[in-house]
Amino acid sequence: MTEHQSDSARTNVHVIVPLHSGNRTSDTAPFERDDLAVDIVHINENGPTTLECAYNVARVEQEVVDLAMAAERAGADAVVTDCMRDVAIATAREMVSIPVLGPAQTSMHLAAMLGRRFSVLVTLPRSIEVVEDQVMLHGLKDSFASARAVNIGVEHLHDDDELLVKRLTEEAKAAVVEDGAHVVILGCTAMDGIGRKVRDGLAALGHPGIPVIEPLQATIRMGQILHELGLSHSRRTYPDATSYLGR
Amino acid sequence: MTEHQSDSARTNVHVIVPLHSGNRTSDTAPFERDDLAVDIVHINENGPTTLECAYNVARVEQEVVDLAMAAERAGADAVVTDCMRDVAIATAREMVSIPVLGPAQTSMHLAAMLGRRFSVLVTLPRSIEVVEDQVMLHGLKDSFASARAVNIGVEHLHDDDELLVKRLTEEAKAAVVEDGAHVVILGCTAMDGIGRKVRDGLAALGHPGIPVIEPLQATIRMGQILHELGLSHSRRTYPDATSYLGR
Amino acid sequence: MTEHQSDSARTNVHVIVPLHSGNRTSDTAPFERDDLAVDIVHINENGPTTLECAYNVARVEQEVVDLAMAAERAGADAVVTDCMRDVAIATAREMVSIPVLGPAQTSMHLAAMLGRRFSVLVTLPRSIEVVEDQVMLHGLKDSFASARAVNIGVEHLHDDDELLVKRLTEEAKAAVVEDGAHVVILGCTAMDGIGRKVRDGLAALGHPGIPVIEPLQATIRMGQILHELGLSHSRRTYPDATSYLGR
Amino acid sequence: MTEHQSDSARTNVHVIVPLHSGNRTSDTAPFERDDLAVDIVHINENGPTTLECAYNVARVEQEVVDLAMAAERAGADAVVTDCMRDVAIATAREMVSIPVLGPAQTSMHLAAMLGRRFSVLVTLPRSIEVVEDQVMLHGLKDSFASARAVNIGVEHLHDDDELLVKRLTEEAKAAVVEDGAHVVILGCTAMDGIGRKVRDGLAALGHPGIPVIEPLQATIRMGQILHELGLSHSRRTYPDATSYLGR
Amino acid sequence: MTEHQSDSARTNVHVIVPLHSGNRTSDTAPFERDDLAVDIVHINENGPTTLECAYNVARVEQEVVDLAMAAERAGADAVVTDCMRDVAIATAREMVSIPVLGPAQTSMHLAAMLGRRFSVLVTLPRSIEVVEDQVMLHGLKDSFASARAVNIGVEHLHDDDELLVKRLTEEAKAAVVEDGAHVVILGCTAMDGIGRKVRDGLAALGHPGIPVIEPLQATIRMGQILHELGLSHSRRTYPDATSYLGR
Amino acid sequence: MTEHQSDSARTNVHVIVPLHSGNRTSDTAPFERDDLAVDIVHINENGPTTLECAYNVARVEQEVVDLAMAAERAGADAVVTDCMRDVAIATAREMVSIPVLGPAQTSMHLAAMLGRRFSVLVTLPRSIEVVEDQVMLHGLKDSFASARAVNIGVEHLHDDDELLVKRLTEEAKAAVVEDGAHVVILGCTAMDGIGRKVRDGLAALGHPGIPVIEPLQATIRMGQILHELGLSHSRRTYPDATSYLGR
Repeated sequence: MTEHQSDSARTNVHVIVPLHSGNRTSDTAPFERDDLAVDIVHINENGPTTLECAYNVARVEQEVVDLAMAAERAGADAVVTDCMRDVAIATAREMVSIPVLGPAQTSMHLAAMLGRRFSVLVTLPRSIEVVEDQVMLHGLKDSFASARAVNIGVEHLHDDDELLVKRLTEEAKAAVVEDGAHVVILGCTAMDGIGRKVRDGLAALGHPGIPVIEPLQATIRMGQILHELGLSHSRRTYPDATSYLGR
Repeated sequence: MTEHQSDSARTNVHVIVPLHSGNRTSDTAPFERDDLAVDIVHINENGPTTLECAYNVARVEQEVVDLAMAAERAGADAVVTDCMRDVAIATAREMVSIPVLGPAQTSMHLAAMLGRRFSVLVTLPRSIEVVEDQVMLHGLKDSFASARAVNIGVEHLHDDDELLVKRLTEEAKAAVVEDGAHVVILGCTAMDGIGRKVRDGLAALGHPGIPVIEPLQATIRMGQILHELGLSHSRRTYPDATSYLGR
Repeated sequence: MTEHQSDSARTNVHVIVPLHSGNRTSDTAPFERDDLAVDIVHINENGPTTLECAYNVARVEQEVVDLAMAAERAGADAVVTDCMRDVAIATAREMVSIPVLGPAQTSMHLAAMLGRRFSVLVTLPRSIEVVEDQVMLHGLKDSFASARAVNIGVEHLHDDDELLVKRLTEEAKAAVVEDGAHVVILGCTAMDGIGRKVRDGLAALGHPGIPVIEPLQATIRMGQILHELGLSHSRRTYPDATSYLGR
Repeated sequence: MTEHQSDSARTNVHVIVPLHSGNRTSDTAPFERDDLAVDIVHINENGPTTLECAYNVARVEQEVVDLAMAAERAGADAVVTDCMRDVAIATAREMVSIPVLGPAQTSMHLAAMLGRRFSVLVTLPRSIEVVEDQVMLHGLKDSFASARAVNIGVEHLHDDDELLVKRLTEEAKAAVVEDGAHVVILGCTAMDGIGRKVRDGLAALGHPGIPVIEPLQATIRMGQILHELGLSHSRRTYPDATSYLGR
Repeated sequence: MTEHQSDSARTNVHVIVPLHSGNRTSDTAPFERDDLAVDIVHINENGPTTLECAYNVARVEQEVVDLAMAAERAGADAVVTDCMRDVAIATAREMVSIPVLGPAQTSMHLAAMLGRRFSVLVTLPRSIEVVEDQVMLHGLKDSFASARAVNIGVEHLHDDDELLVKRLTEEAKAAVVEDGAHVVILGCTAMDGIGRKVRDGLAALGHPGIPVIEPLQATIRMGQILHELGLSHSRRTYPDATSYLGR
Repeated sequence: MTEHQSDSARTNVHVIVPLHSGNRTSDTAPFERDDLAVDIVHINENGPTTLECAYNVARVEQEVVDLAMAAERAGADAVVTDCMRDVAIATAREMVSIPVLGPAQTSMHLAAMLGRRFSVLVTLPRSIEVVEDQVMLHGLKDSFASARAVNIGVEHLHDDDELLVKRLTEEAKAAVVEDGAHVVILGCTAMDGIGRKVRDGLAALGHPGIPVIEPLQATIRMGQILHELGLSHSRRTYPDATSYLGR
């Protein structure tokens, strides 16, 4: 992060990956722009390999918040967590002043701006309930069509990319035809990068013009503009809790 | 817990206090009955002294789940967490099969059965948003009147019991008169035991017949009857995640 | 009820069956416990044989309330009406101070505590609308998946118990697969006693871990603990109307 | 009703007053038109003098349905019950095919057509909850501002007509200013006839252009046009229950 | 309109057709009654031939409002716009004092009075979203089952009346069976006149007693009774904007 | 716009001001960035001077859509309309493929991401209902606290900037204290530029950390990133209607 700090012309968005680095590369190239620097950090090597259960989320939550606090101290302009569980978002917002965004909440609001109802395509059926809880929590029930699973766990997501696109396209079509979805959200940040293929696949199946949101990419950009607009989360919703440290 | 295991005639409810034992006594007497045995365990000595911020909740969540798993292994019939943040409830439900109940969710449903709308009286204003999130998450918005704070932090809750009752009664009255509350929930489990005084105080102020729910007491009993009715949480909402241990 | 009155160690729940006694036995054995005495009374011999239409409910409502008032005078600690129409619940609550519970409202809140959404399995299609009205009235829309009918009227419910279990299991499966139910409520109190069979049948069809609530049993226990917790319905929602008697 | 039957050019709306005739006159003149005949019948002399409690509603419900069935047999084109509790509406709809309307449900939908939110001005505070239940049941929560009471019981409503108008105007103003009401419904059919005075009073207080709905008048006209449009309640919502008579 | 003005015994409802006269006849006969005079005016010859897109609605909105203002000046008692898009309703209400009704809003409230949930049968799929927006706007989500399209554009609606009835009946059945509709609204005012055939068709398919609302007819009558009841839209929701003319 | 077309490195957002140019300057400087070019066009000289009534919106809607179509043909990447009425947004989305954003919908979703509930501070009370309709339409009711007016019409908004800030700060405080707002949206795009003063004023009154959104600025940036993310509105919600041109 050192070099970015002095780079006053660029906004610096800090991405926290709540998994140990074995799973995900740290290539920031796809995200960076002339006006945007991106840092990616992983939690320590003892972290879980998947967040497809709440227990593993519990294991990493404190560390993610600590990393967000470190990022703010190091001069980051915004923090994004790299998991659709929106791990530790609310907690971190109580501890830092810079914008902290989760890809699920961010994608859902973007989707709601683009069409009447969205569906989220998750990895395993067990994540469907996670999406439904987020929808309830954020008061987005009236913009929600459904959550559907492709039945490929995150650890095997990229074993066969063609299969992944095929399954996402099938479930996206079902979401449109059976659930009334008008917009589709890829329900795992590890799916970033194949949104266009799913959109084109949907069009080829007779459903053109359905936006497909890649959540990590979208959330990083949202973090950028929130910072540049001088906005961050409300202290009324997320009261400053730094005074509780050590109690 | 050893002695209870062999006591087949009594249901054993295990209460997990997500604070170190300095704060709370372990007196099970007020809860026990001929048909109900209660165990109370605290998290380890390094735990926080208050859960009035999300960060401290993050610190204890994994340990609370571990304690719930230990309780199930030791033969507990139901688990209750002793904090209105409903700490780790959803996570623990993925890891054990016995009923796991939080006092907030439980009290809110009880309250909704007793009258049109409830208010929750919390310690500090910062907990108001916690209640509002719970209401949204549980889909209880149409039964919710308001959350109000007595402005006494949990660490000072019992510095002056008379003041506490006075403040609770004042806010309860405001909830009834200004917010349309028909039922009142004491919004911190450390307030258990003074519900009757608040109810009587309300009556003295011209508002008789307003139920005042003491959440811990109520949740322990709910845990008991769920077990005795052969009910527990749905595996559809809380899919078994024990296979994720160690991943 | 005489013997129970002096039995101070036991809570006495009074069950009012809003049908003439021809239809239902008065065996209290399945409900009684060391700490719980149960009385069952039927309305008079001219009462209807079924409550599957609103007209018959209208015929019995006043008598049910009169029986609730008699129960309170005789020392009952709580009253439960034995029909998923929640016959006369709101009316009786205006006339007595002890808890008065209906199995529909009670089961729905229990179900909402155990999982995201519940379905109710009723006898005839004509009762589906009754459930939907209750869901609207109680503000539980966000926890409701569907109501489905087994197409066996209450008068023939036990003609073939195997068929009943089969039909309930089929509709429970459809509720889970098609309607997104996570919890199932048996939609007629005369179905009490076969919940476990339905749950096991669901598991055998590939849907384990779906709670199946037997409403009468659950409501009697809820009446017991409300009394023991010192709680009853709110006088704000159900204002005392005893002064209207005779006007 | 005999003379109306042969009067094919006029629609015949039958008004059932669920109180004994001591309370209310049967003057049909204010309601009749060239194209509209109105009959008014009261329940028998043992009926209650007020419906301000649920118990009295329970006392009259069956008789009201019987009167609705008699009205249909006698050739009535539509039935209206003369009380904002919408006594027996749902029950009667299962027993007759002609439209059956209650003034509360009808006024609320009319009000929702005329502005964003309505308030209902009831007699005593105890009726506020009745209105709230109706709003929930009919799914009109988003169009509802509040219910407010003038604190004059129905038996004394016309003791001092000037006072009644004054109190209604005061509460109407409070509904507009404090609760955001855009439309006002007089919350007791015995208030019919003073809507214009309340509207003018509101205008004099600086709130012109607030519609004030007189529910009985409006409901009778709605009954007329439903009949003339060939419409009645849905048999899906209100299945025919005449076959249950005598069971 | 001249002759009606002096006809004090009849209410005069003015129907504005937001299409050029090529498309629709001006036969007022089906609507008129002894107590009701109906005028029908079309927008000028340059108007669109269809309103199945928002752009054409934008083209006509100002003219429709101008016609409503002219109608009021000419003595009309109420204005109805003849298109289920409810073209210019809210705008016109700011400019005139007489009731202005749209057939969509009016039919939806009528439908909600007659049964639990309604479906709207539109011409082309592109109109489904229009209905969904109206439902959201009017807060009628809890009374809404679905919108379905017969896939016949308004310009070809009457090319084959038998086909139209067949398609409407098929979609009505699907609405009842698959979407839970209890009431059906014909989703284009050009469908007025075949409601009875659709209802009978539904009955022949095993679904008797489903009300089928013909929106234009119903809205004209609603306009009549609103006027006769002395009611119009709220100035709080639709503030008088005539002072903005020319700014 | 000519020079921007060849400027492939910059995203070009086109702002349409639905008022004649007398009212608003066309200074794009505050909006432009290295990566963002902004064009501002006004409607023709006959346009209204204010959009504080629906009639004036009706006057400009077609022209705004025509300008959006022209912008797309000229190579614009996104279109934003410069008025919180979100003039012609839905209509324009049917006619162009590039993102079309309104400041009201965009600000509301941004606000909902930043805190539990937002309030919108409008110019005149007559705009309150406009906000409430938008909230209903977009399904954001659960994130909405209130709309409040500063009682200064748009034509006099900048007569006294100090007064404007004072009034906005007062109403913002009332929104926070009385309505439970956690985030504030400036409810007129002509208020852009004073958000920081309102935020600081709120802090000085004891309410720090309340985000204040300047809608035009925020919407332009949202248009930029939607384009850069390859996203636009759904064709399912906004079906292509260009084939209707001329019909």
